[in-house]
Amino acid sequence: MKLWLNGEIVEAEGAHIAPSDRGFLLGDGLFETLLVLDGRPVLIDAHIARLASAAEILAIPLPFPPAALKAACGELLAANALDNAPRASLRVTLTRGPGPRGIAVPPEVSPTLLIAAAPGAEPPESVRAVISTIRRNASSPAAQLKALPYLDNVFAKEEAKLAGADEAILLDTQGHLACASVGNVFFWEGRTLVTPTTDGPILPGITRASVLALARKLDIETEEGRIAPERLLKAEGIFLTNSLTGLLPVEKMDGRKLPAHPETQRLSDAYEAFIRRP
Amino acid sequence: MKLWLNGEIVEAEGAHIAPSDRGFLLGDGLFETLLVLDGRPVLIDAHIARLASAAEILAIPLPFPPAALKAACGELLAANALDNAPRASLRVTLTRGPGPRGIAVPPEVSPTLLIAAAPGAEPPESVRAVISTIRRNASSPAAQLKALPYLDNVFAKEEAKLAGADEAILLDTQGHLACASVGNVFFWEGRTLVTPTTDGPILPGITRASVLALARKLDIETEEGRIAPERLLKAEGIFLTNSLTGLLPVEKMDGRKLPAHPETQRLSDAYEAFIRRP
Repeated sequence: MKLWLNGEIVEAEGAHIAPSDRGFLLGDGLFETLLVLDGRPVLIDAHIARLASAAEILAIPLPFPPAALKAACGELLAANALDNAPRASLRVTLTRGPGPRGIAVPPEVSPTLLIAAAPGAEPPESVRAVISTIRRNASSPAAQLKALPYLDNVFAKEEAKLAGADEAILLDTQGHLACASVGNVFFWEGRTLVTPTTDGPILPGITRASVLALARKLDIETEEGRIAPERLLKAEGIFLTNSLTGLLPVEKMDGRKLPAHPETQRLSDAYEAFIRRP
Repeated sequence: MKLWLNGEIVEAEGAHIAPSDRGFLLGDGLFETLLVLDGRPVLIDAHIARLASAAEILAIPLPFPPAALKAACGELLAANALDNAPRASLRVTLTRGPGPRGIAVPPEVSPTLLIAAAPGAEPPESVRAVISTIRRNASSPAAQLKALPYLDNVFAKEEAKLAGADEAILLDTQGHLACASVGNVFFWEGRTLVTPTTDGPILPGITRASVLALARKLDIETEEGRIAPERLLKAEGIFLTNSLTGLLPVEKMDGRKLPAHPETQRLSDAYEAFIRRP
């Protein structure tokens, strides 16, 4: 496997992250995960724009302009013979780079930019979800960014596994519905599609935004807000969204079976057509 | 500079963290920071015990037994000619090691263990602190561990700098006093020494525990509990604790000047004597 690291295509074996990298030592960085269909990274401009805007919030200078990052993704896919694969994925990781001891942001930084590619597995058809005991921190600016610290999500996912489920749904620290351990959450209330607002401590998902836009096009009523979790637990249909899995139906929520929801299927078909459009 | 990485002393220049390390990609790991006085890592057994117990919570197998880690610290100090330095520091970092794409914990892991040494600077005499807008997550198991995700702390410290201060004091998500961005917090109420309980989302600091034990020996009354932040703001004396800085007096809290507190000095002298005992 080859990687793209700070401007060069390198063999993963010999690739070198400095042990003083603040991404490694402090989780001081960001990432993006992209689906690749037939060699084409899906919605790449939106992913790079989100990375750039998050980097600005963290005051990490983007070491390569968006166009160069986009080209790098293409080069890396080709270098790994994934430019014609029906399905693959990319992960772009940006950190503040090496730093001296301590947590204070150094005055001069030399950010690390890593792109990794992987052959893509088909997503599962549906998942079983449980509500996690871990809550998303409403006071943390990082909660609205795809920041490196994912340990809470790792804990939540393990907790779900122990409960015989696949995915964890997190509330936020104020008790509102937030998101899944890897993805946003949507549910149906009658014919209305409901999802937490990005004013809360959730990642503004790129699939989330596409799904909302498509729903409006399909004349589906949508509600974004601070959502009480009881509403999710009573929902007739629930799905998660994530760049790699698209719309992922929840077949069981906290033990309660949910039949396949026709509106989820209709929206999922529209989303698949949308990301496969030329 | 030399590092100790997975059992070997290596040059920092050529040292190699895999780009697939979950510490780098997800903050999936832990660390410890130790003060070194005259070549002797202070309270090393307590630090290694805390690392081992946190690793158990994260289900990261400790790849070297405590005795080997202790020996490694000594070797690394010698390799960097810091074994006779009056003051130095060590950072021990443990991650779950490389993993495939995704956040699920792989069934088999090969953890990464890195030790870095640095020449030690004298701590400041006192700091100016402000209350952060970022809160410590009371629902996160990681909040009681010295886990890699420190981005909230980085944010809090930057926020403090922007406010003209040096350190940030965080409340927890339930509104209680928690800790500083790097350290525990203590204050005086009359002749009683008050600090948040480790039942809350704070790191069980090793300096914190030593200070409490010494205070009891000196017949100082102590209170550990869920503390309302208003009590801190009215305190006659405040100090922070951290392995590298010992007792660090707060000279200004949210803009209010605090004169040097004689009891802080007495306790600090006792702590210095304690960590320098043969």
